[in-house]
Amino acid sequence: MRKNEFQMIVNFGDTDRAGIVYYPNYFKWFDIATHQFFRSINMPLSKLDAEQNIIVPLLDVGCTFEKALYDDDIITIKTVVSEVNNKTFQFDHEVYRGDVRTGYGHELHGWVKRMDNQLKAVPIPPEIRDILTTNQANKVKQNNPWLSA
Amino acid sequence: MRKNEFQMIVNFGDTDRAGIVYYPNYFKWFDIATHQFFRSINMPLSKLDAEQNIIVPLLDVGCTFEKALYDDDIITIKTVVSEVNNKTFQFDHEVYRGDVRTGYGHELHGWVKRMDNQLKAVPIPPEIRDILTTNQANKVKQNNPWLSA
Amino acid sequence: MRKNEFQMIVNFGDTDRAGIVYYPNYFKWFDIATHQFFRSINMPLSKLDAEQNIIVPLLDVGCTFEKALYDDDIITIKTVVSEVNNKTFQFDHEVYRGDVRTGYGHELHGWVKRMDNQLKAVPIPPEIRDILTTNQANKVKQNNPWLSA
Amino acid sequence: MRKNEFQMIVNFGDTDRAGIVYYPNYFKWFDIATHQFFRSINMPLSKLDAEQNIIVPLLDVGCTFEKALYDDDIITIKTVVSEVNNKTFQFDHEVYRGDVRTGYGHELHGWVKRMDNQLKAVPIPPEIRDILTTNQANKVKQNNPWLSA
Repeated sequence: MRKNEFQMIVNFGDTDRAGIVYYPNYFKWFDIATHQFFRSINMPLSKLDAEQNIIVPLLDVGCTFEKALYDDDIITIKTVVSEVNNKTFQFDHEVYRGDVRTGYGHELHGWVKRMDNQLKAVPIPPEIRDILTTNQANKVKQNNPWLSA
Repeated sequence: MRKNEFQMIVNFGDTDRAGIVYYPNYFKWFDIATHQFFRSINMPLSKLDAEQNIIVPLLDVGCTFEKALYDDDIITIKTVVSEVNNKTFQFDHEVYRGDVRTGYGHELHGWVKRMDNQLKAVPIPPEIRDILTTNQANKVKQNNPWLSA
Repeated sequence: MRKNEFQMIVNFGDTDRAGIVYYPNYFKWFDIATHQFFRSINMPLSKLDAEQNIIVPLLDVGCTFEKALYDDDIITIKTVVSEVNNKTFQFDHEVYRGDVRTGYGHELHGWVKRMDNQLKAVPIPPEIRDILTTNQANKVKQNNPWLSA
Repeated sequence: MRKNEFQMIVNFGDTDRAGIVYYPNYFKWFDIATHQFFRSINMPLSKLDAEQNIIVPLLDVGCTFEKALYDDDIITIKTVVSEVNNKTFQFDHEVYRGDVRTGYGHELHGWVKRMDNQLKAVPIPPEIRDILTTNQANKVKQNNPWLSA
């Protein structure tokens, strides 16, 4: 199944009074990782919406937290397609600081068409299915040169 | 000019590693106060958009910070209309913890109609102008009973 | 097991370009509900930290989304203690708009003491355990009068 | 005066129901730009706090909005030191999409020492003052290769 990974930095505004990352931000990162994944296959979700009225709303999500994260930590988010069903697909995300995984989770997305004033789940087209399920020999690594220590 | 005031609580997620409120949240509160103001005059902004395609995007904002705020602080946001121009209006907001003001600022809003795929500033209707500029003898105080100390 | 429920309003800033709630906000609400729960038993988490150096970081969370939520929706968050273990406890949260549930999830919290520069899981004291596991005949309903339709 | 500029992408979660960026996010970007500025001079604010107990809380901020921003827009934030006073300094920030400026603003920061349980404004040390006021012939441009169109 297709993979992507890219780097981010933990921003000061992502922390809370306990001095560590405020946990809902993990899901902001998962959402950013999903958008980055679709950009990496030349199919930005903003374009998919504008051209085909397709959005990918969430049906189910979860996250397990293993280590605390701090601001200025450089993190790598590793995303892999874990399921492609008829009208849904799932991404699994892992967050690493260096070699240490700090948390992991999943996002189950619907493949939904905006029609007039309603939203309707529709089958994922075969060409998208093919891209999502491709086994990549080498994953894409998107390291940001400005985040090096 | 018309006024409104209501209570909120500072949430844990509003703080940052320095142990105090992360400052962009002041503007989230100003935005919430603006929506609460329009609700207090029976004209929720969501309805104004749905029924008349009117939105009130920001043109200019500012905030001065006087005291640190902490989570679980109960704050009162005092809003007053400070300007009503042809196609713009300004709200001034003050944030208090008890009797102590912790910060204040302004939001200059446009009165903008969504038309097809564009946004166009239009004159504020007289009946809205009247409501905004009314001198209220007593301001509305919206104290939340569940936030009492 | 102990319960609490209280009302909130969905803010404009909680939505995204798709016109519905941006999903990580569900977890902000779960976190707010957890803090409100501890306030409802006279044990605000800010006080627990200040007086006993106890914080309750997350170990595992999840959420299932059933219906879209829009700004100005008035929601009730129903929280119930679902597990009290030696050093962890779990809250289950449900979000309702009127009688319709729009989503539900869980938060597994640790009971953690800040010691010097480290965090250490410690046993939940018996008096806290008693409060969390009490069967309430009537749940507390915290309806905000300023949010009525 | 010293300058820095770097690239970001507007995330889906930065937008609101009006389809454009929710304005408090401009201040999140200003805050990120400030941290990036201090990283660009090898003085990350997280290190300044850890090693010298110095934080730079906000005293006054403002922003003027000129053009709407959308998700997937690639933006460049241009930051320049505009004032260095005895115990405060100001950054001016501009946000560009390509050649078009979409907004600009300022942040007036204090130079504050954490002492026991209080915060105290202290003079900015000469070596910091020198770095902030240096006239750079060429500004640093931090373009992220993964954000190219």
